[in-house]
Amino acid sequence: MPKLGCEPTPTKEIVSAYLNEVKQKVDACIFDFLPHTHEHKDIHQLYQMMLDYPRRAGKGLRPALCLLICEALEGDANRAVNTAAALELLQNWLLIHDDIEDGSELRRGEPCLHQKHGIPMAINVGDALHCKMWELLHRNTDILGHQLSFQILSEFIQLSNQVVQGQHIELSWVRNNQWNLNENDYLTMCIQKTAWYTCITPCRVGAIIAGASNEETDIFIEIGKSLGIAFQIQDDVLNLIGDVGRYGKEIAGDISEGKRTLVLIHLFNSCTSSEAEAVIEIMAQSRSEKTEEDVENVLKLMHKYNSIEYAQQQSKTLLKQAAELFTHNFGHLPDNKAKNLFLSLIHFFVEREY
Amino acid sequence: MPKLGCEPTPTKEIVSAYLNEVKQKVDACIFDFLPHTHEHKDIHQLYQMMLDYPRRAGKGLRPALCLLICEALEGDANRAVNTAAALELLQNWLLIHDDIEDGSELRRGEPCLHQKHGIPMAINVGDALHCKMWELLHRNTDILGHQLSFQILSEFIQLSNQVVQGQHIELSWVRNNQWNLNENDYLTMCIQKTAWYTCITPCRVGAIIAGASNEETDIFIEIGKSLGIAFQIQDDVLNLIGDVGRYGKEIAGDISEGKRTLVLIHLFNSCTSSEAEAVIEIMAQSRSEKTEEDVENVLKLMHKYNSIEYAQQQSKTLLKQAAELFTHNFGHLPDNKAKNLFLSLIHFFVEREY
Repeated sequence: MPKLGCEPTPTKEIVSAYLNEVKQKVDACIFDFLPHTHEHKDIHQLYQMMLDYPRRAGKGLRPALCLLICEALEGDANRAVNTAAALELLQNWLLIHDDIEDGSELRRGEPCLHQKHGIPMAINVGDALHCKMWELLHRNTDILGHQLSFQILSEFIQLSNQVVQGQHIELSWVRNNQWNLNENDYLTMCIQKTAWYTCITPCRVGAIIAGASNEETDIFIEIGKSLGIAFQIQDDVLNLIGDVGRYGKEIAGDISEGKRTLVLIHLFNSCTSSEAEAVIEIMAQSRSEKTEEDVENVLKLMHKYNSIEYAQQQSKTLLKQAAELFTHNFGHLPDNKAKNLFLSLIHFFVEREY
Repeated sequence: MPKLGCEPTPTKEIVSAYLNEVKQKVDACIFDFLPHTHEHKDIHQLYQMMLDYPRRAGKGLRPALCLLICEALEGDANRAVNTAAALELLQNWLLIHDDIEDGSELRRGEPCLHQKHGIPMAINVGDALHCKMWELLHRNTDILGHQLSFQILSEFIQLSNQVVQGQHIELSWVRNNQWNLNENDYLTMCIQKTAWYTCITPCRVGAIIAGASNEETDIFIEIGKSLGIAFQIQDDVLNLIGDVGRYGKEIAGDISEGKRTLVLIHLFNSCTSSEAEAVIEIMAQSRSEKTEEDVENVLKLMHKYNSIEYAQQQSKTLLKQAAELFTHNFGHLPDNKAKNLFLSLIHFFVEREY
């Protein structure tokens, strides 16, 4: 890990403590903002459903990135808490709709919202949280004034355009039963679907609130791309080798769902054509048609060709790139504590086991 | 129809011509704003899907209300076109999700988006248009300045909170197989689900752009409630007795979908308990379980008890209330042309046959 100045490298415990601290601040903002009760019993039920995903323990990467970059760039992180909370709401409405679109079963250790209440209600709850995200961003006016609030809105608009496009690309692959993908196809999708909302925008809005120049803010596009892909690859890897208790989703659920990942693309590039045919036949089946043995067979081939190790290696390389880019561009800034914490945090997330 | 000053009452042709004029302005704004092409073939396809519903001929009631109220209150309607276009985008993303949630088949004479491309893609297209709505509202800054733009954003936030609540109430009735509803239950749902986005907000934002006081703007809550319910009741009536070629949805589709309407509530309040049981048995079945004869039997009972006529009468009474409230509060304003056109427009919409 690149060192900055004389501050000691924060340990995993320090990173965890920081994440907890951020989570408390952001949760306080979210649960103070979202409505909890209503005299109309159906609306009351809607409110409870809107609270469901936010109440499930997320890791809080996005708000932490936002606040840390704000601090590292000499801003007042407290002014960014509201925006960080909006990033969490974004994540939650996206997950609700994403879980329906992918036919997922588990989210953060519990059944997905549509598994509990049906698809129609879950779509609407996602929409409700989506609207609440813009409402929370609207509240920035009191904290940041009109001009800065409008700039933050612009960032969320840019991000939302990216995320729906990335999502559409992935859904097209499923709908068209398309498997002849190269690494570039995957990276394009991944940058749009994941990197923008997970890394690029959180860092950018943190920087903007700190008063960064456009030039400085734009550096986070490159940093965030590398970081976002690294993060997604690790997520895909954990899906295959993680521990269900800590990971919160079904293991190898991505195989059941037929998800295209870097691991799978590496496998296709490495295995024999008859093996590839067999894998496609399994992957293209619907979730209910796949047996445990089918999933196991795909996993075995991924191990045989070291596809998981390959993906992990790519993830580490991208992480290194992101860290170097950050150090190169922001090494001159005085706050070594926030900067070192940022570097530790991104390592923690890419090397995490859950 | 109440008369205002010496301007002649606009004929149906004048109202139609005005609607066409508004539609051209608003369409120009929407199709100039929405992206049409992209070099990535999947993103290009997403753009085409986003254009699908906006390209289907809507009636343009919401933008017309917005521009007319702006003009009637002595504002410059051209400054409201962007906001009127955002109302159309709102309508389109709501319809895409609503069609999925209700399991609808036809929308404006064509298969619903999810019937063409599957539920996952349709959810995402709805989200994409939803995001575009906020982006369009963000563009108001250049037209209206920061402060007024933020006020318009507030209106859309208020409206979106209402609409997701109304939608949830209706979905709850379906999910809980609830049929013991009274008129009040229906009206509460209808105000939230329909009146806010169809009438209240369009009028309010038109008034705000015209520089109306809060007091004046708030009058449109009452006017818009009456008008919105009247509009929805007429929509429900047309669903039962309309002509599929002009109406654009399947006739009696609401019975197939098991939709709770004022017509149905009146029927339950009028028929024998054994008839009510039979109707519930039919209504509660899924769309695929219902036969044409089932639907026909419910329709026959609605005719037998004059439930359709009752709903039409209620609709007319509400329309009259809205018109009187408008005349009472805004009769002193000089622009009789826009005011008379507004009154003719609302009559046109409540008395329309498609």
